[in-house]
Amino acid sequence: MTAVSPTPADPAKLLERLGQLLGPSGMLTAAGDMDPFCTDWRNLYHGRALAVLRPADTRELSEAVRLCVAHGVPMVPQGGNTSMVGGATPDDSGHEVVICMGRMNHIRGIDPHEMTMEVEAGVPLKVAQDAAREAGMMLPLSISSEGSAQMGGILATNAGGNNTVRYGNARELVLGLEAVLPDGEVFHGLRRLRKDNTGYALRQLFVGSEGTLGFITRAIIQLQPAPKEVEVALCAVEDAQGALALFSAFRALDPALIQAFEYMSGTGMALVNDLIAGASLPLEQPAPAYVLVELATPRPGADLREFMEGVLADAMEKGIVTDAVMAESEGQRANLWKLREEHAEAQKRAGASVKNDVSVPVARVPELIARATRACEDLIPGIRPAPFGHLGDGNIHFNVVQPVDMPADAFLARSHDIMDTVADIVRDLDGSFSAEHGVGQLKPYMMAEWRGGAELATMRRIKAALDPHDLMNPGKIFPPATS
Amino acid sequence: MTAVSPTPADPAKLLERLGQLLGPSGMLTAAGDMDPFCTDWRNLYHGRALAVLRPADTRELSEAVRLCVAHGVPMVPQGGNTSMVGGATPDDSGHEVVICMGRMNHIRGIDPHEMTMEVEAGVPLKVAQDAAREAGMMLPLSISSEGSAQMGGILATNAGGNNTVRYGNARELVLGLEAVLPDGEVFHGLRRLRKDNTGYALRQLFVGSEGTLGFITRAIIQLQPAPKEVEVALCAVEDAQGALALFSAFRALDPALIQAFEYMSGTGMALVNDLIAGASLPLEQPAPAYVLVELATPRPGADLREFMEGVLADAMEKGIVTDAVMAESEGQRANLWKLREEHAEAQKRAGASVKNDVSVPVARVPELIARATRACEDLIPGIRPAPFGHLGDGNIHFNVVQPVDMPADAFLARSHDIMDTVADIVRDLDGSFSAEHGVGQLKPYMMAEWRGGAELATMRRIKAALDPHDLMNPGKIFPPATS
Repeated sequence: MTAVSPTPADPAKLLERLGQLLGPSGMLTAAGDMDPFCTDWRNLYHGRALAVLRPADTRELSEAVRLCVAHGVPMVPQGGNTSMVGGATPDDSGHEVVICMGRMNHIRGIDPHEMTMEVEAGVPLKVAQDAAREAGMMLPLSISSEGSAQMGGILATNAGGNNTVRYGNARELVLGLEAVLPDGEVFHGLRRLRKDNTGYALRQLFVGSEGTLGFITRAIIQLQPAPKEVEVALCAVEDAQGALALFSAFRALDPALIQAFEYMSGTGMALVNDLIAGASLPLEQPAPAYVLVELATPRPGADLREFMEGVLADAMEKGIVTDAVMAESEGQRANLWKLREEHAEAQKRAGASVKNDVSVPVARVPELIARATRACEDLIPGIRPAPFGHLGDGNIHFNVVQPVDMPADAFLARSHDIMDTVADIVRDLDGSFSAEHGVGQLKPYMMAEWRGGAELATMRRIKAALDPHDLMNPGKIFPPATS
Repeated sequence: MTAVSPTPADPAKLLERLGQLLGPSGMLTAAGDMDPFCTDWRNLYHGRALAVLRPADTRELSEAVRLCVAHGVPMVPQGGNTSMVGGATPDDSGHEVVICMGRMNHIRGIDPHEMTMEVEAGVPLKVAQDAAREAGMMLPLSISSEGSAQMGGILATNAGGNNTVRYGNARELVLGLEAVLPDGEVFHGLRRLRKDNTGYALRQLFVGSEGTLGFITRAIIQLQPAPKEVEVALCAVEDAQGALALFSAFRALDPALIQAFEYMSGTGMALVNDLIAGASLPLEQPAPAYVLVELATPRPGADLREFMEGVLADAMEKGIVTDAVMAESEGQRANLWKLREEHAEAQKRAGASVKNDVSVPVARVPELIARATRACEDLIPGIRPAPFGHLGDGNIHFNVVQPVDMPADAFLARSHDIMDTVADIVRDLDGSFSAEHGVGQLKPYMMAEWRGGAELATMRRIKAALDPHDLMNPGKIFPPATS
């Protein structure tokens, strides 16, 4: 269902004034120019826009917002356009403007004493990571779209990724925030304070609000010291229960060392092994499931290798781990990570697949994987569940690949059956239907059932209080009101 | 300034219905019974109440709230009544009800696999800490009022303390929350998910909202593995710049080991040494300033002692640290901590003092201390600035003690001059006027100047959207509207 925006008041006049404000490099109105900004990268949504605005700074953005509000024109913020859920794509009314943050792309400073970085919204995550590294520190957030995804979107969607287990999601990394509110006013919250109890946690609210409460324009990011020792191991386990037991063993000894803890199914690993050039399993024989664990510490001489060897030896003695290999070089580390990172690509090559970005309490991951695997197999014989992901956060990408001998179309026609099957089990385990990817325009229909009652009602009240005319990214997060 | 609540509609009828709902053990109405709940522990505020309610569970609380709303009666949530800013004390109209959470004091469960604890609001922090310890884990939040302070208040005020430098404030420890909203509806957010991007971060908003948005009734708290090695050192430094340099040295090597990093002035330490029985400085000679650093790790055999010795030796070689002593036993650790923990008591014995709970960016702490010390000395000759606190968070308790030869009354008459003097410098350094203690009814007058404009306006909009009749803890956080 696509929300249809109301007809704006005098759009020609608005465009004229926006053009004066933003100049020729700040506004696109030709359909061909706007197309790339009106389609999401997954190719799920094809919208249209009245214009694509590219403000150069917070002041321009603020004034552009005021103009749009005065004309009743809805605004869709867009960063790197890498949303998994159509969160940055306009509807097909042609009445909305897309506002791209890409020109606000300066790193305003890195402070080695505070270990902070001030970024503008349009800085790609990868650029920010590299800048931190060059300054001898680390920006501890990594996702597969980091080359394109921009910091504003990273924060607006509270991005997660492989390192959440250690450093938290984007929310946990933000000390301060500047934002343009739905009425064009500027929220000046660019503070660098680790403790500040002076009223409501507005920046916590803006982070993860998916552009429905305004535009994040700048942020202060907490950096970390760069790791001095890194160790990566690939472990064979009997099942997800074994993977959880291994996680618990590491966590009990030192949670601060666990940089990533990734689960992979035997099915998914076999696909990578078979379909990805240069990827090969460095173990004697295939296993029912695998764990990739990365430990890291900024402390030189911490004997991380000895520590990891000790934990793995103990786990093998207890039968938790059946085989394991530790990387001996940076090249080997990259090869082990390749086995994990190529899961999505291998699944794509294996045919059609259905993705579920779900989370459950960590201790329930084994039950999730066992039950959802069985339920999917019962639903469609020959289906290939290939769950993988961030076991340390309870966040599993429960992807299922089509049966070998089934036409892709026939399989995809069952998408909603599959998603519902997985979702029912996730709900039963008190989980979330969207661990990392957000709600966007793909999943608002799930909100009423999963987050309904007082919770959704409270979200609606906040939305209405800050954006009374529903002009900020309408149709995202919230299902149509049913009153 | 005290907000005066409107006269409730038919209070006798309300009390009758509340009495039926809550039973004899659930409601106090005799003035003598209510007195302890109407005065804050600092003895700054003396209010009156229509009744003190003590609901037994979420359902009773929810119904009590509905009744109060129907009669237009404001509600003041109260936990352990340990607010530093009068946040849990009613006004003196006698129209408000105080709602105490103390009977909802069950630990609902501890899950060692998830490392989580489910607590009700009325559980004292100390009780929750002990329960975690008995289960072989740690609840990593510690404040001086932990024997009385209850978890609901801890969360409502986003409490901090000594371990924030490592584990964050209360906000960072909360995975899930249940709350009764201002209309009596229940927000069911008791999730145990480390990743969940399904709409606005309501629990982040409730944490730190000081009871102005509803009642926190239950929470899921993230626990940590218990430390296996702990090392504590007391270091003499030349000034706060030296203390910061030492912090930077530890942080660069391994921020995850830093359990606490506390600054103390030479003046404050001398008061402790002189006025507290059993406290004595274990160094050759007094220093201009001190650091107490505690390192800890859950990893046995981590050679923490060797690590700390190495860092301190290096710091002494560089002249950052002039002298240091490491505790050799648990008794010695307690003695070193005593020097820090008795700072408030020693200052009390030294005469009248003025407290400022402020924060600045970590790297600016030395400038804060130097400038504020000088400015206070210029203001009142003979004044004794004795700043101490959480340097690792940029949070300094900038307390100043009266001159030896000045009458206490005369000194206290200058309280606001002193607070303004410190505040001006904190503002100039982009800091906060309340790092840990919140706003309550003591500091709303500062909000407009420090958090005004779009920030305070947005907070007001959220407050009005969720509590349209301003019945939840009125007069706290927000200054009177000036429209």
